[in-house]
Amino acid sequence: MIYLDNNATTQLDPAVLEAMLPFLKDHFANPSSAYSAAKPVRKAVNLAREQAAAFLDCDPDEIIFTSGGTEADNAAILSARRLYPEKNHFVTCAAEHDAITNCLKSLQSTDGIEITSLSTRPDGTIDLDELRHAIRPGRTAMVTLMMANNETGVIQPVTAASEIAESSGALFHTDAVQAAAKIPIRLRNSSIHSLALSGHKFHAPKGIGILYINRRTAFHPLLTGGSQENQRRAGTENPAAIAALGTACQLGLQHLDSLTSNPDPVAALRDHFEQQITSLIEGVTINGSSAPRTPNTSNLRISGTEAAAMTLLLDQKGVCISAGSACHSGSHHISPVLAAMGLSPSEARQSLRISFSRFSTLTETNTAITHFISATTRIRSLLTSTP
Amino acid sequence: MIYLDNNATTQLDPAVLEAMLPFLKDHFANPSSAYSAAKPVRKAVNLAREQAAAFLDCDPDEIIFTSGGTEADNAAILSARRLYPEKNHFVTCAAEHDAITNCLKSLQSTDGIEITSLSTRPDGTIDLDELRHAIRPGRTAMVTLMMANNETGVIQPVTAASEIAESSGALFHTDAVQAAAKIPIRLRNSSIHSLALSGHKFHAPKGIGILYINRRTAFHPLLTGGSQENQRRAGTENPAAIAALGTACQLGLQHLDSLTSNPDPVAALRDHFEQQITSLIEGVTINGSSAPRTPNTSNLRISGTEAAAMTLLLDQKGVCISAGSACHSGSHHISPVLAAMGLSPSEARQSLRISFSRFSTLTETNTAITHFISATTRIRSLLTSTP
Repeated sequence: MIYLDNNATTQLDPAVLEAMLPFLKDHFANPSSAYSAAKPVRKAVNLAREQAAAFLDCDPDEIIFTSGGTEADNAAILSARRLYPEKNHFVTCAAEHDAITNCLKSLQSTDGIEITSLSTRPDGTIDLDELRHAIRPGRTAMVTLMMANNETGVIQPVTAASEIAESSGALFHTDAVQAAAKIPIRLRNSSIHSLALSGHKFHAPKGIGILYINRRTAFHPLLTGGSQENQRRAGTENPAAIAALGTACQLGLQHLDSLTSNPDPVAALRDHFEQQITSLIEGVTINGSSAPRTPNTSNLRISGTEAAAMTLLLDQKGVCISAGSACHSGSHHISPVLAAMGLSPSEARQSLRISFSRFSTLTETNTAITHFISATTRIRSLLTSTP
Repeated sequence: MIYLDNNATTQLDPAVLEAMLPFLKDHFANPSSAYSAAKPVRKAVNLAREQAAAFLDCDPDEIIFTSGGTEADNAAILSARRLYPEKNHFVTCAAEHDAITNCLKSLQSTDGIEITSLSTRPDGTIDLDELRHAIRPGRTAMVTLMMANNETGVIQPVTAASEIAESSGALFHTDAVQAAAKIPIRLRNSSIHSLALSGHKFHAPKGIGILYINRRTAFHPLLTGGSQENQRRAGTENPAAIAALGTACQLGLQHLDSLTSNPDPVAALRDHFEQQITSLIEGVTINGSSAPRTPNTSNLRISGTEAAAMTLLLDQKGVCISAGSACHSGSHHISPVLAAMGLSPSEARQSLRISFSRFSTLTETNTAITHFISATTRIRSLLTSTP
């Protein structure tokens, strides 16, 4: 298997699995219990919180462990709605993840909030002037804008956007699920009020995530019950997954730190892949390539092909890629991300997402390239020979 | 370590860990992905759903996998609130878990719902006539009543209560977290509209649970985003934890099935423990003993002692028990469960929870009994010798 769909999910780092196992075996106590057997479990949760805080350059008490990115995104939005019922306007963008978009739509239908969805420019980024005009001072509860796009890797100007939101009295939330461990995230002294991460997008397991809430920002919990997570997220903690996530944060930070003195090996693979594909196959466009992108993501449009057929042929060769985000697999609607960038439905249907990780190798990449070439040739010949 | 706090959490069954590991290693694909590598992962999620349905005697499409019991309880309550905004009355009981109580209290403060909290009788059960009078036809959205209590094991008459609720047009939800794999749960043709389970209370890992929603019952999702769980719970599925939970359901069902022809070994240990403690220590009362109880739970009041001191001395001998539910550990307020049963604050402070599992042994139990005796003697002598 050549796994090039790391924006859908990632393999566990072996060190992450190692960090997890003690809490699935001997150290199974409930971290809230008072006896000695619970102490190493509590300690592991505390350590992971420090690792997560170091990863995001924030304080440990600004970290809330959640069941994943969706819960973190939903909790941030629903908290803003609860805390500021008089502000019934939210600003988002057309390329956001469903965890943002559908949560806002749900509030629109049940609570009557108003949503302004910013368009994206052809390169996939938003226009900050459009954001400035969209915010309604005193009426906009929250601006929510992803840090990096799941389909294209395009990086949004969240620092500037967060300052615009804050200066207008709106909260600023960012879904940073696709940015984590790919680009540095430094929250200290930033204008970002809340941020969502998902462990399984950077080599931790599924079922664990982070909601960062700036310590100056109020928060209304989504889940209520026990007093876990400093009364901000009820439910028995998941120490195995939390320890795993803490380790993934530590490894992610090490990876990012190494890039200050060395070139990014993931970017090198991705760039090599794009250079080879565009030179060896005619009619290839890289969606979003003129914008800043995460180093691991490539969104390719190969003219004269169909993404569904490409993924099928590549799958037969053991190459895992995506014709859209995993959340959309199985459905046939056109990617709203690519549509927002101005691609026509037929252009979007020619587009593929290839996403690398630090476990991807040059050999795998080169093998994948040969399979891309043969799949393209085969599909083009099939499509042109159809009477 | 002698672990007798299985109502706080349980060890993983080794077979459960085995079922989990493939999805933390090679089979890491996102189950929503379209390629072949995702198929065994999707298959495992489907199998677990069937195992969970068999465990609860319901249909697989009535099972929603959640991050745990708290999320399941919260989702059921918040769905009822969303779907029936004109019904602003909820009925619960004074002995419910915080995941119910605090969720309702949160709705009370933010949404102005009215709550009727049924008292419990001295044996810990509710009075069905009090329930009949509490329901306001056309105005009560939901009756929520736990199947078995976390502190005493007392089993509530949920079948009768659910029929009363249904006949009055109210939804009936039950927190069955402490009942699972201890007593049979048969949902087919029942009047229970929704039910919450937590994996880690019956030898599955923390961070996974079940919300059962009867197929005739409407549901408004708590988490929105991707279309996972048939659009009822967004967020990438957690196949490792789901496969683990499915296996725990299968093992739990096997255990329960074995009890139709054999005595319950867990009940035998608990009964032996209670018989020994009450005959060897004077002044012991078993809280809730005149009501039906789960077979694994013992809530003892040992007069002339302090539970905090008892747990400390027992911890020094490696015996893990609880002076209340784990969620309350570290806080000093009196158990609302015991208070509802009529215990005075000082009586409640003499009460301990001991909870067995199918991994508990007779040798451990007998060793624990000797430690209970010596701890009781020591504390009684300390407390009476204090000038």
